[in-house]
Amino acid sequence: MPYRAPAADYQFILDHVAGFAEVTATDRFAEATSDVTSAILSEAAKMCDDILAPLQRAGDLHPARLENGVVRTSPGYADGYKAIAEGGWIGMSASETYGGMGLPFALSIAVNDLMSGACLSLQLKPLMAQGQIEALEHHASDAIKDLYLPKLISGEWSGTMNLTEPQAGSDVGALSTKAEPNGDGTYAITGQKIYISWGDNDFTQNVCHLVLARLPDSVPGTKGISLFLVPKYIPDADGNPGKQNDLRVVSLEHKMGLHGSPTAVMEYSGATGWMVGPENGGMAAMFTMMNNARVGVSTQGIGAAEGAYQHALAYALDRKQGRVGGTGTIVEHADVRRMLAEMKAEVFAARSISAMCAVALDMTTATGDATHRARAALLTPIAKSFGSDTGIKVASMGIQVHGGMGVIEETGAAQYVRDVRVTAIYEGTNGIQAMDLVGRKMMDGGEAAQALLDEIQSGADAAKGTFPDLAEAVWQAAADMSEATDWLVSRTDMQDRFAGAVPYQSAFARVLGAHAHLRAAMQDDPARQRLARFYITRLLPEVTGLLAHVRTGATDLMAVTPEDLAVA
Amino acid sequence: MPYRAPAADYQFILDHVAGFAEVTATDRFAEATSDVTSAILSEAAKMCDDILAPLQRAGDLHPARLENGVVRTSPGYADGYKAIAEGGWIGMSASETYGGMGLPFALSIAVNDLMSGACLSLQLKPLMAQGQIEALEHHASDAIKDLYLPKLISGEWSGTMNLTEPQAGSDVGALSTKAEPNGDGTYAITGQKIYISWGDNDFTQNVCHLVLARLPDSVPGTKGISLFLVPKYIPDADGNPGKQNDLRVVSLEHKMGLHGSPTAVMEYSGATGWMVGPENGGMAAMFTMMNNARVGVSTQGIGAAEGAYQHALAYALDRKQGRVGGTGTIVEHADVRRMLAEMKAEVFAARSISAMCAVALDMTTATGDATHRARAALLTPIAKSFGSDTGIKVASMGIQVHGGMGVIEETGAAQYVRDVRVTAIYEGTNGIQAMDLVGRKMMDGGEAAQALLDEIQSGADAAKGTFPDLAEAVWQAAADMSEATDWLVSRTDMQDRFAGAVPYQSAFARVLGAHAHLRAAMQDDPARQRLARFYITRLLPEVTGLLAHVRTGATDLMAVTPEDLAVA
Repeated sequence: MPYRAPAADYQFILDHVAGFAEVTATDRFAEATSDVTSAILSEAAKMCDDILAPLQRAGDLHPARLENGVVRTSPGYADGYKAIAEGGWIGMSASETYGGMGLPFALSIAVNDLMSGACLSLQLKPLMAQGQIEALEHHASDAIKDLYLPKLISGEWSGTMNLTEPQAGSDVGALSTKAEPNGDGTYAITGQKIYISWGDNDFTQNVCHLVLARLPDSVPGTKGISLFLVPKYIPDADGNPGKQNDLRVVSLEHKMGLHGSPTAVMEYSGATGWMVGPENGGMAAMFTMMNNARVGVSTQGIGAAEGAYQHALAYALDRKQGRVGGTGTIVEHADVRRMLAEMKAEVFAARSISAMCAVALDMTTATGDATHRARAALLTPIAKSFGSDTGIKVASMGIQVHGGMGVIEETGAAQYVRDVRVTAIYEGTNGIQAMDLVGRKMMDGGEAAQALLDEIQSGADAAKGTFPDLAEAVWQAAADMSEATDWLVSRTDMQDRFAGAVPYQSAFARVLGAHAHLRAAMQDDPARQRLARFYITRLLPEVTGLLAHVRTGATDLMAVTPEDLAVA
Repeated sequence: MPYRAPAADYQFILDHVAGFAEVTATDRFAEATSDVTSAILSEAAKMCDDILAPLQRAGDLHPARLENGVVRTSPGYADGYKAIAEGGWIGMSASETYGGMGLPFALSIAVNDLMSGACLSLQLKPLMAQGQIEALEHHASDAIKDLYLPKLISGEWSGTMNLTEPQAGSDVGALSTKAEPNGDGTYAITGQKIYISWGDNDFTQNVCHLVLARLPDSVPGTKGISLFLVPKYIPDADGNPGKQNDLRVVSLEHKMGLHGSPTAVMEYSGATGWMVGPENGGMAAMFTMMNNARVGVSTQGIGAAEGAYQHALAYALDRKQGRVGGTGTIVEHADVRRMLAEMKAEVFAARSISAMCAVALDMTTATGDATHRARAALLTPIAKSFGSDTGIKVASMGIQVHGGMGVIEETGAAQYVRDVRVTAIYEGTNGIQAMDLVGRKMMDGGEAAQALLDEIQSGADAAKGTFPDLAEAVWQAAADMSEATDWLVSRTDMQDRFAGAVPYQSAFARVLGAHAHLRAAMQDDPARQRLARFYITRLLPEVTGLLAHVRTGATDLMAVTPEDLAVA
């Protein structure tokens, strides 16, 4: 079954669920009218359907490989990338000054979602560039911006992010890559970086690495880290790729999925780099990139879920087993119907949450308002974790709908599971997201969270006349969430928050998902109303169990000692 | 980290949780004293650790392959199989008349669990033979038993089961393979069978296929199906493998996991077969094999979960990230501790449920009592689905504990996820298990379920003095489960049961798991008490949400039409 990018679903979410009208009402994004977004989404969908989707399996079967130090990409990926670049999709939200379209981030993530469903491993490439573009726009010197941004935005050059080292993963502050001043304003970068997505390729003229490293005598930890731009080829006087820099791909990882995306171990041997942002200000600059990328990763999970869902639905509408009425296919079996409805309802919930987060980011860009900023900051970890968790869950259900065919690779269902698994890990594991949510994002005493929960309750109040039972369930879940938030914020021992951080994050996503479904139900669309009812009556009740877990705190958990955990 | 088969955990469960003492108190199994079981488990564990575990990765890297019609197995698998056969592990529960050990099934599944954690794809081979042995013991003629059983039990010959055809998966009754009388008491079998696990190999002298097929003029559906034994080589007058039968392996599937297990498409072209059981009685005979195999599959999930857990624990106890006290490793982070505790607690719960099911089967064998039979019948779908679901969940958490390393194949964590996925599908998908649970297994009006829930409440009553809060939680969850069971049984429209069948099945497993943990806590073992507290306070509350789903019924679900599900 061919993939069809869900442009209409996104349009509906922007128009009726995520409050995108607020964005287009600003001066900054006044041009992004409903007609414009509709045209953009249709155009992107066409590329996804016609050009990217056919590459999905080719990338899996013919992984990127390293030959004599050169990365050879999967068949067709060069053309697929060219289509993405020429469509202008890389720089959709980038500044028009440098050739971008200056469109809202909400549209950019919409297109990333559509592309992810078509071919996740290739979509990861422009996603990396987008993060780099945003980091450079905010933190780089004008000279760097003038030289690099037009090339990155056009896609002639591509970008990567280099954080992780073998001893420094979630603990970024433990990194040891060195940056020594060359005396001419540049730095010599020396060290090894791992898990570098799209660390090299054979179809862009240059590859620009943003690398976290330490200046001599910097303080230990994250406060002694600076950010450097380290191109594969050093630009010559005309800005063209010149001399090869002192860096190389040591090896590519053998991963369970995303075979089309070369994940590199990079060696920097005194490579020439340019500092981006201030000395020891690397983490702040990197977070610009990370936050963008985190919402991007949420769309990867959602896109993969969409692809897996469409794949399973097509199978279920075709496969005959057992004596059933209606279509005569397995979709008439209650449990198959349940799985498909759950998959679709989850995708809608996750997509809505990411769109809400993107809208908050756009409102921050447009207004600089602290309330929008806090909303975006709160929603980012929820969007990232729930998007990726949804990808993993829905892809696995997709296998289940297929029965035995699901584990046969030719079917394609298994690839979604293998490809999407890493989205719960990279750009900060979902556990790290949860710690961010209950830690940093609650430093306001829970104000941003409570404001959002208040909005959800207001939405439920407004829906009470139309769907009293659904509205009441959403209202009550938000109230329970609010109470749990108060409890969480009142913990002075951070371990008490961290012990239940992941269940709290999941519960928040559930409530937000119910909010989105209820908003959708308020439109005059019976199909969406039926799906909302499914979600709110069958999935929302999970919140009770999750919050019970949250309120248990850390004591009993940490009492399970490492010795207890050892094999009996 | 080397795998260590959890013999001690099993011994604890047999002694203190699953009521194995009742089995050894029967005449039939009087010899299976605690000393005997302990010696057996130790011996099996040694083989698993030393011989099977080293094959796990080799099988993944070097899949079984078909060369000129001959299946070539993975490196080392022939020796691994030899060790299993020579240890007598294939025929542990088989009749002593034919060379088996006549031990309780509970011990047999214990050893299957230990072997599954070591090397799942190889363990699947003896598991298939065990099902065949049981089917032949119950349904075959004496001539067939005398000829085949000693060879199958010793492992010289191996067995497969052939149910599925391209158009007949969950709907077995749709199969079309033909069996025509040859006039000499044998039949000519013609048709294609798919998904035949270990359909062939290069290390047993013969491969015996149990094949479901239709006699001429048989009625449509499951009532017109008979069972046939179709050996690869037709035994000669001396019972040695003679002439090659008219059957062949057409191809092997490319699966996401279990690469070491050759999954064959088999073509029967008038192959000679012998009927097993009465004409048109194939389904009953096959169910003997299936029920055995279903509990076996539960142990596959649990074993894989154990392997994944041990793997993740070793990593967590070694990996340093962040400033933490204690061991100085990531196990000190609350969320990592949560994941590991959850993994261990789930494995214990699932293992206990399978053991309870096996004990009920043994009691049925020993006493023929209908109560035990009903208990075993009730627990089989729960054990199968929860064991496999636990395998999938725990293996995925294992990846998460590893962070980025988790998706790198060399780490080994991803293989557990890929290998275990099919356990939720084969031997009846977990959706089929749930339909069996709320359908056939509730034809007694819920009597067996309520009797079990009563026992759980009695256990909770007995624990009230020691752990009042835990006991109360278990008691209440059993009460809620009982109420949901009443509701379910009262539905006259089966769709109402089927719509919530999977959540009901999951909830039942949760309550049984809590029951097992509470029993464990009643032993004077602080580590097990802490783990029980973790499970009962943090995971058991999921039951509330699951039962809310159950009680929603089918109307709203089936109202989500196939058109609603189509892409927006």
